[in-house]
Amino acid sequence: MAKQSTEGITVKKEEDISEWYEQVCLKGKLAEFSKVKGSIVIRPNGYAIWEKIQGYFNKNIIEKSGAENAYFPLFIPESFFHKEAEHAKGFSPEVAWIDKKLTGDGERLAIRPTSETIMYDSYSRWIRSYKDLPLRINQWCNVVRWETKATRLFLRSREFLWQEGHCVYETEKECDKETNWYINEYKRLAEELLAIPIIVGKKTDKEKFAGAKYTLTIEAFMPDGKALQCGTSHNLGQGFAKAFNINFEGKDRKSHLPWQNSWGLSTRLIGGMTMIHSDDKGLVLPPRIAKNKVAIIPILIKGKEEKVLKKAKEIQKSLKKYNTILDDDKDYSPGFKFNKYELEGIPLRIEIGPRDLEKNQIVLARRDTSEKQDIKIKNIEKSIKETLETMQKEMFDKAKKELTNKITKTNDIKEFKKIINNKQIALVPFCGRVECEEEIKDNTGASSRCYIDDKSTSEKCIKCGQEKAKWIYFSKSY
Amino acid sequence: MAKQSTEGITVKKEEDISEWYEQVCLKGKLAEFSKVKGSIVIRPNGYAIWEKIQGYFNKNIIEKSGAENAYFPLFIPESFFHKEAEHAKGFSPEVAWIDKKLTGDGERLAIRPTSETIMYDSYSRWIRSYKDLPLRINQWCNVVRWETKATRLFLRSREFLWQEGHCVYETEKECDKETNWYINEYKRLAEELLAIPIIVGKKTDKEKFAGAKYTLTIEAFMPDGKALQCGTSHNLGQGFAKAFNINFEGKDRKSHLPWQNSWGLSTRLIGGMTMIHSDDKGLVLPPRIAKNKVAIIPILIKGKEEKVLKKAKEIQKSLKKYNTILDDDKDYSPGFKFNKYELEGIPLRIEIGPRDLEKNQIVLARRDTSEKQDIKIKNIEKSIKETLETMQKEMFDKAKKELTNKITKTNDIKEFKKIINNKQIALVPFCGRVECEEEIKDNTGASSRCYIDDKSTSEKCIKCGQEKAKWIYFSKSY
Repeated sequence: MAKQSTEGITVKKEEDISEWYEQVCLKGKLAEFSKVKGSIVIRPNGYAIWEKIQGYFNKNIIEKSGAENAYFPLFIPESFFHKEAEHAKGFSPEVAWIDKKLTGDGERLAIRPTSETIMYDSYSRWIRSYKDLPLRINQWCNVVRWETKATRLFLRSREFLWQEGHCVYETEKECDKETNWYINEYKRLAEELLAIPIIVGKKTDKEKFAGAKYTLTIEAFMPDGKALQCGTSHNLGQGFAKAFNINFEGKDRKSHLPWQNSWGLSTRLIGGMTMIHSDDKGLVLPPRIAKNKVAIIPILIKGKEEKVLKKAKEIQKSLKKYNTILDDDKDYSPGFKFNKYELEGIPLRIEIGPRDLEKNQIVLARRDTSEKQDIKIKNIEKSIKETLETMQKEMFDKAKKELTNKITKTNDIKEFKKIINNKQIALVPFCGRVECEEEIKDNTGASSRCYIDDKSTSEKCIKCGQEKAKWIYFSKSY
Repeated sequence: MAKQSTEGITVKKEEDISEWYEQVCLKGKLAEFSKVKGSIVIRPNGYAIWEKIQGYFNKNIIEKSGAENAYFPLFIPESFFHKEAEHAKGFSPEVAWIDKKLTGDGERLAIRPTSETIMYDSYSRWIRSYKDLPLRINQWCNVVRWETKATRLFLRSREFLWQEGHCVYETEKECDKETNWYINEYKRLAEELLAIPIIVGKKTDKEKFAGAKYTLTIEAFMPDGKALQCGTSHNLGQGFAKAFNINFEGKDRKSHLPWQNSWGLSTRLIGGMTMIHSDDKGLVLPPRIAKNKVAIIPILIKGKEEKVLKKAKEIQKSLKKYNTILDDDKDYSPGFKFNKYELEGIPLRIEIGPRDLEKNQIVLARRDTSEKQDIKIKNIEKSIKETLETMQKEMFDKAKKELTNKITKTNDIKEFKKIINNKQIALVPFCGRVECEEEIKDNTGASSRCYIDDKSTSEKCIKCGQEKAKWIYFSKSY
């Protein structure tokens, strides 16, 4: 008999969220640290979540917007970066380079931290006429940013997986409209698939993407009050088009500069989802994102195994569309298995033993609430379907309520500091100037997350008192 | 009106296959050369083919075999390579390294040329007991091999996309069985999806994978008689397990070394498919791999546009499951559009004009044979379905016949040389020794492709005359 020692989570979420989070990821077999400093291994349980995100994304965002997937090189010539000055400045500290000796042509090659420059070089050849627009291309790939801060599973690693969409439009209006459309679809993905409540808004000048006109963001908030930027959509204006010589012949037969946007989200989302929903027993997965939605644990008592197993197999078959697991390993106790599937976040557990069988029922346990219910076997399919839907909804509602409770509106700087110290989120009037933002960061550790909208108000900036401030969220962040 | 200048293929396949192939890929918008030496851009038309391959593969190979997808780091510490001596020797000339200054810990990092070493480091921690076996993990990723030969779209580039599966088994027998299973599934994928006829067999010691016990391969043969290795499945024996300290507690409570295999196929397949099927008008896609299977070209004559367009739209709607394109751009002539979709390899074209409409019919044209047929509109769905099926089958049959015609069996060395010079494939008795193979390569330019089976025969080696030779294919190769 193999050793029965799958250890549970040994730290409470409330006591040490950082250590707790790491254990949830490791013991839920989502990911592990690699021997390569700064890199992580995404294990099958974690990668299955990424595949679900990809499936949803390709269907609801790529196809729906008329975008197409493609693949551009991992390597980017150094000279490409320098074509757009702000972009180069923004990324240069984080770029990993390939040894010049190898490249042989005197120019270093970057390992892509993002692909604007290499893609727009191609775009400059592909785009000739207004008939080629809008051009909407997305790629799923790995990117590398040479982080020096400590590696955190999914949240911060030198290599991560993401998608990056890059569109080109005839007019500013179209570009604006779709930059907004994409960020709102990101919100929908996070909320509907991952049950992560999202705040959408615009970044400040300090926080916007290097080279962008403006950046829209989806922000999630973790139980420790820290924000997690989960995806962004950038209106790039015409700067890259100018730098990369992208232009098109318009209906007027004249040459024009197009407008561009780019939008991306990454495996970071998996970390956010894990941190928001999981508990002291391990991973909790929203049903829609779970590959295996149900685990059946037969209670095997000597002499009565056969009948129970037969019924368990029948149930498994009837629940095939949920990728239902049947764990009939006789070497492990039911309790051991309960712990195992709780650690791995399987949404529903079915227990079935000889006594249940006599009553033509099973026990159905929900991972998120630990609620147990007796269900008649004849009602099982209906109950599973309904319970999964309820669970998805309730997980989102709970997280949404927690988020709402964390936000406090104030225009008083003392109150602001108290809010940040209490690991909450402050909604404050702000002038938008980089200097003010840097001072706030130095004094409180909080950074701006996003404006709630573009409206100037009668309020004064919480930092400098300048008038016509706009409401913005501040918090600590990952 | 935009410039009507999509140029067709300017070189004949028979005259200069190399230039012809490049034009087919470029003008079919499958891929282009990147400004980064050795790298290519896979454009949406090309990437859609890769996505179809991925979809088929995940369903028919990954799921069916009980494998799971995961993701391992791009970077591999140099020391990992040296753990398995033959493996290190085999790959060292091709590895791209990250600047030591950046890594900061005195060790260079390789950009993965293949992931055995980084994956097996994790496996050594994940595998404890026979209960953890078989372990079957696959990853879809980019790999880098620093080729010095000229770049060829899909066929040879420094970065390419592939999948690599890596399994661990308790017994040699299981490992053998599944190493064979995977290669046979590769054959099925190539033949059923891409209509590429395949020869399956075992590689010689010279050609096997660095560190493998043996390598199985699927070989396709191009119209110029050169072979293209399209996928491989390696039985790795126990060498990597030993090197990476992977062992498990067996049912007997003792520690054992497991057996391993790995199997991979790449975007190279797209190149092979393109070269086999395409013609002097451009790309020809087997229907099953084509994303857009039908293009409707309305013949728009002044005053009669509306009726034709209305019907064309109805037809498009009824053929939605084939991702049917309707090209109603009035700025381009039907002839221009015919050329365009022929260049891009759309399997079927529907022409519909006012006269067709009067007769309640359309013209259906097949991309591979240029055959045209009048089809009653009421029969259109049935006809499309049947024509696509017939086309898929006939494209495979044609390619299969061409392959069979290229193979000549001989045990005479003079005849052998003639066969190779005539751009054909020779089936010859061979001793299997590395020296003989190197001499043949030096004298004729041909390399061994694969044994037809494991049987020793009464024939003598075509090179050295050694007895008990085995039948093997020789040809030039990509």
